[in-house]
Amino acid sequence: MWKSIPLIALFLLSCTITRAQTDDDAFVLKRIHTAALENGKAYSWLTYLSEEVGGRLAGSPQSKQAIAYTFDELDKLDNVAAWKQKCTVPVWERGDKEQVIIRQNGNIIKELDVLALGYSGATKRRGVQASIVEVHSLDEVDTLGYALDRKIVFYNRPMDPADLIPFHAYGKAVDQRVYGPAKAANYGAVACLVRSMTQNLDDVPHTGVTIFPEGTDPIPAIAITTNDAEWLSTQLRKKSRTDATVITSCKAKGNFKSYNVIGEMMGTVSPDTIILIGGHLDSWDVGGGAHDDGAGCVQAMEVLNLLNEIGYKPRYTIRAVLFMNEESGLGGGKAYADSARSTQTFHLAAIESDAGGFTPRGFSMEADPEVFTRYYRKANSWLPLLEPYGLSMSQGGSGADIGPLKSMKGLLVGFRPDPQRYFDFHHTRNDRIHNVNERELELGAAAITSLVYLIDKYGLE
Amino acid sequence: MWKSIPLIALFLLSCTITRAQTDDDAFVLKRIHTAALENGKAYSWLTYLSEEVGGRLAGSPQSKQAIAYTFDELDKLDNVAAWKQKCTVPVWERGDKEQVIIRQNGNIIKELDVLALGYSGATKRRGVQASIVEVHSLDEVDTLGYALDRKIVFYNRPMDPADLIPFHAYGKAVDQRVYGPAKAANYGAVACLVRSMTQNLDDVPHTGVTIFPEGTDPIPAIAITTNDAEWLSTQLRKKSRTDATVITSCKAKGNFKSYNVIGEMMGTVSPDTIILIGGHLDSWDVGGGAHDDGAGCVQAMEVLNLLNEIGYKPRYTIRAVLFMNEESGLGGGKAYADSARSTQTFHLAAIESDAGGFTPRGFSMEADPEVFTRYYRKANSWLPLLEPYGLSMSQGGSGADIGPLKSMKGLLVGFRPDPQRYFDFHHTRNDRIHNVNERELELGAAAITSLVYLIDKYGLE
Repeated sequence: MWKSIPLIALFLLSCTITRAQTDDDAFVLKRIHTAALENGKAYSWLTYLSEEVGGRLAGSPQSKQAIAYTFDELDKLDNVAAWKQKCTVPVWERGDKEQVIIRQNGNIIKELDVLALGYSGATKRRGVQASIVEVHSLDEVDTLGYALDRKIVFYNRPMDPADLIPFHAYGKAVDQRVYGPAKAANYGAVACLVRSMTQNLDDVPHTGVTIFPEGTDPIPAIAITTNDAEWLSTQLRKKSRTDATVITSCKAKGNFKSYNVIGEMMGTVSPDTIILIGGHLDSWDVGGGAHDDGAGCVQAMEVLNLLNEIGYKPRYTIRAVLFMNEESGLGGGKAYADSARSTQTFHLAAIESDAGGFTPRGFSMEADPEVFTRYYRKANSWLPLLEPYGLSMSQGGSGADIGPLKSMKGLLVGFRPDPQRYFDFHHTRNDRIHNVNERELELGAAAITSLVYLIDKYGLE
Repeated sequence: MWKSIPLIALFLLSCTITRAQTDDDAFVLKRIHTAALENGKAYSWLTYLSEEVGGRLAGSPQSKQAIAYTFDELDKLDNVAAWKQKCTVPVWERGDKEQVIIRQNGNIIKELDVLALGYSGATKRRGVQASIVEVHSLDEVDTLGYALDRKIVFYNRPMDPADLIPFHAYGKAVDQRVYGPAKAANYGAVACLVRSMTQNLDDVPHTGVTIFPEGTDPIPAIAITTNDAEWLSTQLRKKSRTDATVITSCKAKGNFKSYNVIGEMMGTVSPDTIILIGGHLDSWDVGGGAHDDGAGCVQAMEVLNLLNEIGYKPRYTIRAVLFMNEESGLGGGKAYADSARSTQTFHLAAIESDAGGFTPRGFSMEADPEVFTRYYRKANSWLPLLEPYGLSMSQGGSGADIGPLKSMKGLLVGFRPDPQRYFDFHHTRNDRIHNVNERELELGAAAITSLVYLIDKYGLE
């Protein structure tokens, strides 16, 4: 019996230590959240990005303004060094307002509210006119083949409204937008209409990138609203001949130099090891890029601000990276990964916020299989601290900009806010600051900061 | 050894049954959610209530329109009997647009954007003018006492922005609005200004009820915006004399007859036992009462629609109750409880949705202590079915309208959606349909329907 006494004492001692640490951490997480809600800067930064700068395609004058503004704001933060990292981005311009006019038996019956897709080709000044063929998949286009020659191909497979996770529904429908126009072009189609990517039935067109590979000349490729898609489908079932006239003046202008914007707080113990938090600074040209992805940028910046607010000195270097050109080529993400690889910089963790500034729900994690199980187990040990804030963890993807870091054996994390409203705004003129709730945005920043703090304090092994 | 074989067999058999039941239930919950997202009616009902009917104070013409509309819509549903239940409601009218004009050293410096509180008194036509005294609590008013005679008392204790749960912050600040004006009146104050109940700093006044008990003559009681509250506080710290002129023409008109609207689907096994789902049909007169509480009403109605959609025949009677007069007296809730008590109608469960049409997060439950533990344990056994939809359970309050049923030994449930945006809209002109997301609203209805289905199928014992 007596032998067990020291063991019990040790056990009790260890409980005390663990409990004390946990209480201490809980206190720190509470301070992080309070600082975010009382003194956060994210919403005012985002207001500037969305409303003063506005939509900011990679390479555009607005993207340059956004680079200058975020660089200055990071530079103003105590204990933060700001710098810019060169990258190469393809530049595309929308040109004049695009038009799609629907004719039946030769008479105009409707002009649609449309938006050319990124990398859409241009028409001649008077546009291109042809009859419309509705399809629901890329396979169907292959089946129809050269019957699509000199037609306008209309992709109309909806995002499944019954899918609980809008991002899953997007993943299952977006091939039409990304690969559909090039596929149609290969069979001689003269233009392409694509149903907007949203589960809603509404009157707002959603743009987004489409890809014309080398060797395929771009054709005009246009997003139409979901309500117009339903309407057009009904028109096409009538016996009347239905044509569209499509007018675009989009232009791809080649590759230009741009920058990722970086702010970092130097580690006090292992400054060569990085914990990265990032979002992407470019956005589509319509709207203000508020949720996509101004929110992710200002949350990354806010992590540094909140660490200052609570007076925390990190062991590792905490680096906020605002990536350029996520929307159409990942020029910034590639440049960052190339640099990290060439300097052999170890990224213990990289966290991306690119799912909107909504109420935080948790984190999705991935890593090289060699390290994933250990890291994920360690991260899960913090759940009792995170669950009071409504945060959970799951295995899954992280983010497009940090993806190339995966081979470097760090933990990759995707921040996961509530997803239900994202496709109300995604790539539309409505992605503006008035559709962002300040508390939700700040709680997201606090959630990410909490995870950064725990990774920094305890590591992942 | 052989003796254990039948036991093992029994165990395996029971596992199979349980597993099969669970799979079956999971399938039903999935169907409920799909029906809500694909064929739900809640959003179109709510659009009508918020935009066609608009704000609907108990006893107002709009409240009568809302009664007629929801009665008709319930009556149209298959397998649903609609009826109305009489209740008595106090009627109050805002009258002409209220005004608060701030003067410093006799000169007008600002007219505030304000909203009289429900049951505010009226001024003479030219209003009342007096100097302003800022206070932060009812206790402070007691301390100042008759020093407040012929003053305007300005309650300015904020809702704590750092409180993670906005409803908690509301609970800790709303005494100023509900009891503050009467308290000030008792010391001779001639009017009362109250900082709006929101954690935001913004430019939207929030109304809400204030109570003048018998024997206290109502004084004008006015909500001012949080930004104006901050501004006014700054002005009052200056040496200059700061006065306000307050003009209101509000009027309490006495008690009138109104109705709860009820739709019920008869139980096939125990029709005398009720599972109630409810919201309140009245709202403040400004805005459209979309989140508060049109959302709860249409979700209650949607439960009946979704049970039809999936072809479920309930064992117990499922009753949707749209309560009248939650905002200023609970006339409908009291009439309902009186009737339930006098007819000794057993309510196995009553679920109230009155926290907005936001993404569902779970349910808060309470009951008489004699039954609570058993019921709550049973409800928690369904968590594996509900968690995939992001739903959890907690012990806590349910809802104001169903509260009086507590003594009758049923389970009382408060539906809990994400709370962060609620006080952007609560009791304001912005509580309109464009601030409700259709998917979030429908997912809430599906969550409630799922719980109703499980209670109906398995009971609570």
